[in-house]
Amino acid sequence: MGKVATADALRFMTDCLKSVGAAAKAAQQQAELLIEADRVGHPSHGLNRLEFYVNDIISGACKPNNQPKILKESASTAWVDANNVLGATVSHFAMDIAINKAKQTGVGWVTVKGSNHNGMAGYWSKKAADQGLMGMAFTNTSPLLAPTRSKKSALGTNPLSVAAPGSDKETFYLDMATTAVAVGKIEMQMRKGETLPKGWAQDPDGKETQDAELAFKTGCLMPLGGGEDTSGYKGFGLAAMVELFCGISSGSNYGHKIRSWSHSGDGGPANLGHCFIAVDPENFAPGFGDRLTECMRHWRELEPADKSLPVLAPGDKEKKASQLTDSRGTVSYVKQQLDSSAALAKKLSVKPMEVVE
Amino acid sequence: MGKVATADALRFMTDCLKSVGAAAKAAQQQAELLIEADRVGHPSHGLNRLEFYVNDIISGACKPNNQPKILKESASTAWVDANNVLGATVSHFAMDIAINKAKQTGVGWVTVKGSNHNGMAGYWSKKAADQGLMGMAFTNTSPLLAPTRSKKSALGTNPLSVAAPGSDKETFYLDMATTAVAVGKIEMQMRKGETLPKGWAQDPDGKETQDAELAFKTGCLMPLGGGEDTSGYKGFGLAAMVELFCGISSGSNYGHKIRSWSHSGDGGPANLGHCFIAVDPENFAPGFGDRLTECMRHWRELEPADKSLPVLAPGDKEKKASQLTDSRGTVSYVKQQLDSSAALAKKLSVKPMEVVE
Repeated sequence: MGKVATADALRFMTDCLKSVGAAAKAAQQQAELLIEADRVGHPSHGLNRLEFYVNDIISGACKPNNQPKILKESASTAWVDANNVLGATVSHFAMDIAINKAKQTGVGWVTVKGSNHNGMAGYWSKKAADQGLMGMAFTNTSPLLAPTRSKKSALGTNPLSVAAPGSDKETFYLDMATTAVAVGKIEMQMRKGETLPKGWAQDPDGKETQDAELAFKTGCLMPLGGGEDTSGYKGFGLAAMVELFCGISSGSNYGHKIRSWSHSGDGGPANLGHCFIAVDPENFAPGFGDRLTECMRHWRELEPADKSLPVLAPGDKEKKASQLTDSRGTVSYVKQQLDSSAALAKKLSVKPMEVVE
Repeated sequence: MGKVATADALRFMTDCLKSVGAAAKAAQQQAELLIEADRVGHPSHGLNRLEFYVNDIISGACKPNNQPKILKESASTAWVDANNVLGATVSHFAMDIAINKAKQTGVGWVTVKGSNHNGMAGYWSKKAADQGLMGMAFTNTSPLLAPTRSKKSALGTNPLSVAAPGSDKETFYLDMATTAVAVGKIEMQMRKGETLPKGWAQDPDGKETQDAELAFKTGCLMPLGGGEDTSGYKGFGLAAMVELFCGISSGSNYGHKIRSWSHSGDGGPANLGHCFIAVDPENFAPGFGDRLTECMRHWRELEPADKSLPVLAPGDKEKKASQLTDSRGTVSYVKQQLDSSAALAKKLSVKPMEVVE
């Protein structure tokens, strides 16, 4: 592990994206999205993804300087063509529309086609929560989830996220893949030489496997809930619901029609679909924030089964991680990440990040 | 098991509710909601619940002849006071508002306070899907779900449901508790004398248990996903999200503040919260229904890991069960259910159901 000043990591990511042709604002917004993932403790969606975006720009699969546009609009909805820009560009565009509509009619519901990977889903929900609204964000992704009983994958990890503002600076924050776990967790078990818990992943025959290496090679994740006897079909249903709101609604690629996941950037335009929702709780019962905060505190104060493991409210993990990051002023990266970033700096002739300790 | 003509079971439930004072329409709508659960193969939410509603009317905890009313309204939202009517009465009232708003502005989002148990959540989503819309319905329920790491329950089984119309008469239908399983499944394992799969339920110390009898007695369910190592906190997060949309938004009772579950009807008004959403997919990309149907068919045609267990699309189980019910014209009930219904008929001086075979 090595530490890098948070501001320097942000600068580096912005520079890399600019060096391959992204305009300053697009590069900055995408870099802010990535550093936020590193800041709140989800490194899989941070600097780790940079090269993927860079390669998609180099290959022409992503066009960072296009403009997203509204194709259809009603009082509370909009249908947006991302026009193949970076995920952060169109997600700001679309969530801003949802927020404005929510302030006018109570709800804004925006679907997006023609997009690229848009990072941590929770980043977009939180954008609405920061404006006093309930926010939701969904995206489809490359196939990795095997529907219950299926040998093969047919849906992505299709995350859903929800954020809402409580009183006293509390924020409800839920950002979850609809698979049991992300691929990164399997990779981690493999590196540690440990087996997998049941319910994470399948082998090439479609059977549950606890062999981390085989699971990683197969790349076929089980839905949240695991096997059929533990209601894995609910996780499959949730992933399908996310696809309903994203690709099926927006007319982007969907499910089995999405290109497979790779960092090499040779797969052509992703044409992903997203969905952004904002709702103004002022339209319902007064005292929303107080009730939410009361709930969050009640959950934290529940007696834990194991005294050393206190109960966490949704978002507590991310809140704690971000406070730690901010107090240190640095983000930590594994050696492999630092090495590949140094190589990328060289390749793009960009000033490398400085490892401070 | 014994069979009863579907129409007779509907008649019986309507009569029982009328006999304790519910007006004809309210009784009819509640009975239709219950028979639908028996029809699609979810008997826990059918006739099985009748006595619970009847007792709540007798005790005065539920006031079936009140009128629900709109407390606040915007172009796309409404806040409704159920005024303690039966769940079916206010759910029709609220989902009709959501549907009308969706047809006008694209989205309708309605929250309800002061309500009673409103049956199978999917019934309300499907009401919107039958009108060509995406429908969603959520409700909070009495505490049964233990947040990850907690010894005790603090949320209900908080179901979420989504339905949407495909082309060629396909319907996407997802109706799921956010716990791994419902209490009824634990009861079934206990009756069969079998142990529980991991990840279903906790013992009084907050540890996972596979002892069906102990689990049933404890009444503390694990969230979808099971333990922490299989991402049970995601199921907890989903249950909390449902509460955000229901009790926290509507100002009804919520989470730990909801009365505990009992059939005896001595707990005072339930003051439950619901949320109903309708969205018109016509506001997004043309071809919504075709894409949805293509997806549903693709999932069904995926090669199964076990050839005897074909992959099911969301709603296939319910569709199959309802076709079977309709072809037979009868619903089947376990002996215990038939006995308690006969006793109820006697108690209320209502014509009993006729067991036809």
